[in-house]
Amino acid sequence: MMRIDILSGVPDLLASPLSHSIIRRAIDKQKVQIVVHDLREYSADRHKKIDDYPYGGGAGMVLSPQPIFDCIDKLTSERTYDEIIFTAPDGELFRQKDANELSVRKHLLFLCGHYKGVDQRVRDELITREFSVGDVVLSGGEIPVLMMTDAIVRLLPGVLGDAESALTDSFQENLLEAPVYTRPATFRGASVPDVLLSGNHEKIEQWRQSRAEERTKKKRPDLYKLYTKKN
Amino acid sequence: MMRIDILSGVPDLLASPLSHSIIRRAIDKQKVQIVVHDLREYSADRHKKIDDYPYGGGAGMVLSPQPIFDCIDKLTSERTYDEIIFTAPDGELFRQKDANELSVRKHLLFLCGHYKGVDQRVRDELITREFSVGDVVLSGGEIPVLMMTDAIVRLLPGVLGDAESALTDSFQENLLEAPVYTRPATFRGASVPDVLLSGNHEKIEQWRQSRAEERTKKKRPDLYKLYTKKN
Repeated sequence: MMRIDILSGVPDLLASPLSHSIIRRAIDKQKVQIVVHDLREYSADRHKKIDDYPYGGGAGMVLSPQPIFDCIDKLTSERTYDEIIFTAPDGELFRQKDANELSVRKHLLFLCGHYKGVDQRVRDELITREFSVGDVVLSGGEIPVLMMTDAIVRLLPGVLGDAESALTDSFQENLLEAPVYTRPATFRGASVPDVLLSGNHEKIEQWRQSRAEERTKKKRPDLYKLYTKKN
Repeated sequence: MMRIDILSGVPDLLASPLSHSIIRRAIDKQKVQIVVHDLREYSADRHKKIDDYPYGGGAGMVLSPQPIFDCIDKLTSERTYDEIIFTAPDGELFRQKDANELSVRKHLLFLCGHYKGVDQRVRDELITREFSVGDVVLSGGEIPVLMMTDAIVRLLPGVLGDAESALTDSFQENLLEAPVYTRPATFRGASVPDVLLSGNHEKIEQWRQSRAEERTKKKRPDLYKLYTKKN
């Protein structure tokens, strides 16, 4: 069973996403164990402070090294982690290939950034991978860590009800998906494309393939280039 | 006050991130009102189903048009929305400029995607903007919507304690931030750079600027190019 540890200064923020939907299902099926650690519990400060003013001045608070080092020391003394991951605006962009790669690891440790950043010594000495989830400023690393956890956990064998489902997702082949439709066939005057109602599987596949290529070419020429190279 | 409506098939997943950290603070300060809608409550199906099998076959379930149309009809009859936003893998990549732009709007409506997708008629007829949060497959749009909400809400005037803080963040000037440090000056043998302890503000600014440029040049040559063009 995979084990994921998450270190956070606002651990309660993580509660509801970790207990619903796919992550909940993966935990219930014992495919993953997720352990959240409250950084405050590791603070040696008598007020349980976990951040402090930045050296050199400036706005915002910086996460202190002591609680993080002590928490990670304790965890790494108990087991070996494949990666110790930090979320940083200047990290590597998290992509599907990273989710694929991390989904075959055994022990992952995530440190959620917060406030204005984390003391650089933490990044220099403890962290093995730094991921960004795009050029957006967020108030903390918790939501990015939830995003990565969701992307990883849903790939674990036996988590998705339908094994085929993950393989046909967007990005697994550098191709966006074709439009999807469900009942009713006509809704408020708008109808589902005839081919999807035809029962002709070969034609349906052809339609889906051509719409997927068309959509990728139009919306994501960068992906389309990678796709055509491989096909 | 800004109002954000979120439509979801798993509304409880959203609870803890919407009641902690910056979003909580923005709500408490009455800078934003966030209303979550359970799609199931709008389902005309007697089992409150909100999804169905895709036409043409294939893995995964597709969100049905009826509950979404009915919910959005009700909301748009009550007020005018500046944007009706859907999270889709093939949407436009959500960037800081989008957060900036959306933070000056009054009414935003987010529809969280789920399962294998949403009936295309919803996208064609109701949605005004489609955003992706990167080339990653997630089990739902809830976490991306939380991410966008966090990015938008923290920009609302009066939400951040320190008005300067948001302006000096990464990406606001196409420059990553310089490393940050806090106490103690020496921790486990690793010391804070002398300049940050010097008290010489001019030198500190020079150091930060050069480290920020260095870091951006190395880690994000694409951003660095935009930065040098403007400066």
